[in-house]
Formats: sequence, structure tokens, C-alpha cells
Amino acid sequence: MAVRSRKMTDKIPEPTLRRLPWYLSNAKLMKEKGEKYVSSTQISRQINIDASQIAKDLSYVDISGRTRVGYEVDLLIQVLEDFLGFTNLHKAYLFGVGSLGGALLRDSGLSHFGLQIVGAFDINPNLVGTTVEGIPIYHTDEFEERRAKDGVKIGVLTVPINIAQDITDKMVAGGIQAVWNFTPFRIRVPETIVVQNTSLYAHLAVMFNRLNEIIKK
Amino acid sequence: MAVRSRKMTDKIPEPTLRRLPWYLSNAKLMKEKGEKYVSSTQISRQINIDASQIAKDLSYVDISGRTRVGYEVDLLIQVLEDFLGFTNLHKAYLFGVGSLGGALLRDSGLSHFGLQIVGAFDINPNLVGTTVEGIPIYHTDEFEERRAKDGVKIGVLTVPINIAQDITDKMVAGGIQAVWNFTPFRIRVPETIVVQNTSLYAHLAVMFNRLNEIIKK
Repeated sequence: MAVRSRKMTDKIPEPTLRRLPWYLSNAKLMKEKGEKYVSSTQISRQINIDASQIAKDLSYVDISGRTRVGYEVDLLIQVLEDFLGFTNLHKAYLFGVGSLGGALLRDSGLSHFGLQIVGAFDINPNLVGTTVEGIPIYHTDEFEERRAKDGVKIGVLTVPINIAQDITDKMVAGGIQAVWNFTPFRIRVPETIVVQNTSLYAHLAVMFNRLNEIIKK
Repeated sequence: MAVRSRKMTDKIPEPTLRRLPWYLSNAKLMKEKGEKYVSSTQISRQINIDASQIAKDLSYVDISGRTRVGYEVDLLIQVLEDFLGFTNLHKAYLFGVGSLGGALLRDSGLSHFGLQIVGAFDINPNLVGTTVEGIPIYHTDEFEERRAKDGVKIGVLTVPINIAQDITDKMVAGGIQAVWNFTPFRIRVPETIVVQNTSLYAHLAVMFNRLNEIIKK
């Protein structure tokens, strides 16, 4: 190709990455309604984001719209799913098979978005050696050896807060490169390690607080 | 009281609300280690947030630190848990008992942070009339009547994207005041309705993208 597409040269901003799944789900909806094309103006009207912002976000993805008609829906879906990494499976380990950890193991939906949990680690003797939805639970001590063999790069962290940092350190020492942190604990990692914090509790706190304000009015 | 505390007059900013659970989990860890007092400087060192930011965030909460020693750990935990709404249970309904919805119903951990799912709604005849972890699943048609009786204000949205907006509209029409949206769909609600978006898929997208950048290097 003579022209280098933008995505090859620029690091895509995180807010853009977070918005792209909205456009993807909107495109899927359009497809279901039988639409062949969708414009940024149409998406804008439906999800309440500036059309120019949408066009700018989509400029990071390797797709171009046609004047007046917009983006081809099928192509937009395919390009976005590829770009977001939802079409190929990324192997992951889960650490801590408690209530939330167990729930995530049972959520087969994650694999539709590219995450395949291939093993879990815990120290509870009642859990070690068992499986959840076919996913084996190993003793935490087995992690390093297994990882070297499996080549897993992603770790899902669902341990109690008092061992969150310890387990993170073990993960990193053992070769994990990205940590999806579900604990309400702010973990410390070397700069080269990717961290995504999904704190359900922080979202609850915001929701309760805003709800109280409404009720007080 | 002669002095009105700050939290009575100002709306607490969302970034502050999102950081408070970090301080809470840090205080819990300090307590476990036998510490009686913790200063913002200590918290700062551990979780890598500016001490002045921490002090500012905590000024929204009804607690004052003592010079040199800092905040009393037990009190800090109690005040934060109260303030964040984790100590009293907020009743909620869940909409859509699919893979993620079912997983959330099984996550008893949510109740430790103040969310009690008291019922779920679906239209799947194989699910309606059954229970998950003791939580009854009703037909979606029963929602309005049940809500009027139960006084539930929070709705957890885990339906497929093609009905996300429809179900949201039903929830709002039926009296739900806060929607915890787990779908990758950007829902539209009236201004008075609280929405928290927890898109696991957006977090996955960011993680995959950043991981790819590292691997490419």
C-alpha cells in the first residue's frame, strides 16, 4: 500500500477505544434492521455523540465512508470487530475463584469479545483440581510453570484486596503482560505492563451517590 | 451543628467518588496490618496518587485527620463505607438473565458493597419461574406491577443490545431511577435518570489494543 493508514502511525487514544464498541453495537443494530449503510450523522443521532467526533474516531480504523450514504454496515462491523480484537481469542488466566471470579468463569459471553479464560488459580483446596464450565482450577503455585507452557499474556485479577498486590507481582514475575483488575485495590505494576481497572464497586458508589441526590431533591 | 460540612453543600465530583473506594480498600489493608492511623502521605505512597489529591478527596467525607498521625483507620473505614453507600442495602432488579446477567446474580459479593438484587426479569420460558441463588426470575411483563410493590429504584441492564433501549424505556416508565448498564450499547434516558456504564467489552478493547502495541515493539 502506498498510503500508510493512520492506525499504523498513531497511538489511538483511550477515549476513542472506549467509544468504538458503541459504534460497533450501533452498527449491529442497524444491520438487524436491514440497513445497508449508516452515516456518522445517523449514529450521532442515536447515541448522542457529536458526528464529527464519530468521524474522527472512525478515522483511526481502516474504513472510509462514502459521501451521503456513509459506511457500509457489514464492513463497519467486520472492521471494528477486527480492530477491537474481538475476532481472535486472547488466552487469559483468572486469579482468585471467589464470588466474582467464579461468576466471570461462568460468563461465556467474554469469549464473544475475544477473551478466552483457559485456566484459573486459587489456593483453596476445595477448588483446586475442580473445573468451572470446563475451565480447570490449579493451585497458584503452578502458575509460572503453566504460563511458560501456555504462553498466556493476560491475567484477570479477582482476589481479595489483601493479596491483590502480591498476586499482581507474581503474575508480572511469571510473564503476564496485561492485568484486568476487578479488585477495588489500586495495584502497582512496572510501566511496561498494561492495566485495565474495572471496579464494579466504584460504579456502585457513583450510582448510590447520584441516586441519593435525586431522592433528596 | 454550626459548621455545615462540605458534603452537604457541594456535589462531589465523579473522579473523587471513583477514587474513594481505593482509599477504603487501602484503609482495610492497613487495619489488617494492625495500623491504628494512616496519613494521606502513607496512602499516597502506596497507591501512587498525590497526597494533596487524597486530602482534597477526603475533605468531601465527614472525617478529619490529626496532624502527624493522620486518619484513624477504623473511623476512616466506617465513614467511607457509609459515605459510599456500602453499609445499607440498595434493592435492585436485573434485566436479562443471559450469560453475564446470570453471572451477576451469582456474584454474592455485590451485596457486600450495598447492592441487593431482589429479582430478575427475562422472557425466556425456561428461566421464568426459576431462581438463581435464591433470586426469583419473573416475566418482563410483571415488572411494573412488582416494582410498584417492591419500591426498587435500581435496574441492572444485561440484555442483548437489540432490546437494550426498549428495556431501558420500560424501566424508566415503570419508575426505575438508576440504570447500571452492562451492555456495550449507549442507552438514552431522561436527564433525571442516573446511568452508570460498565462496559467489560470496552475495557477488553483497550487491553487488547495496548497489549498489541507492546508485542509489536
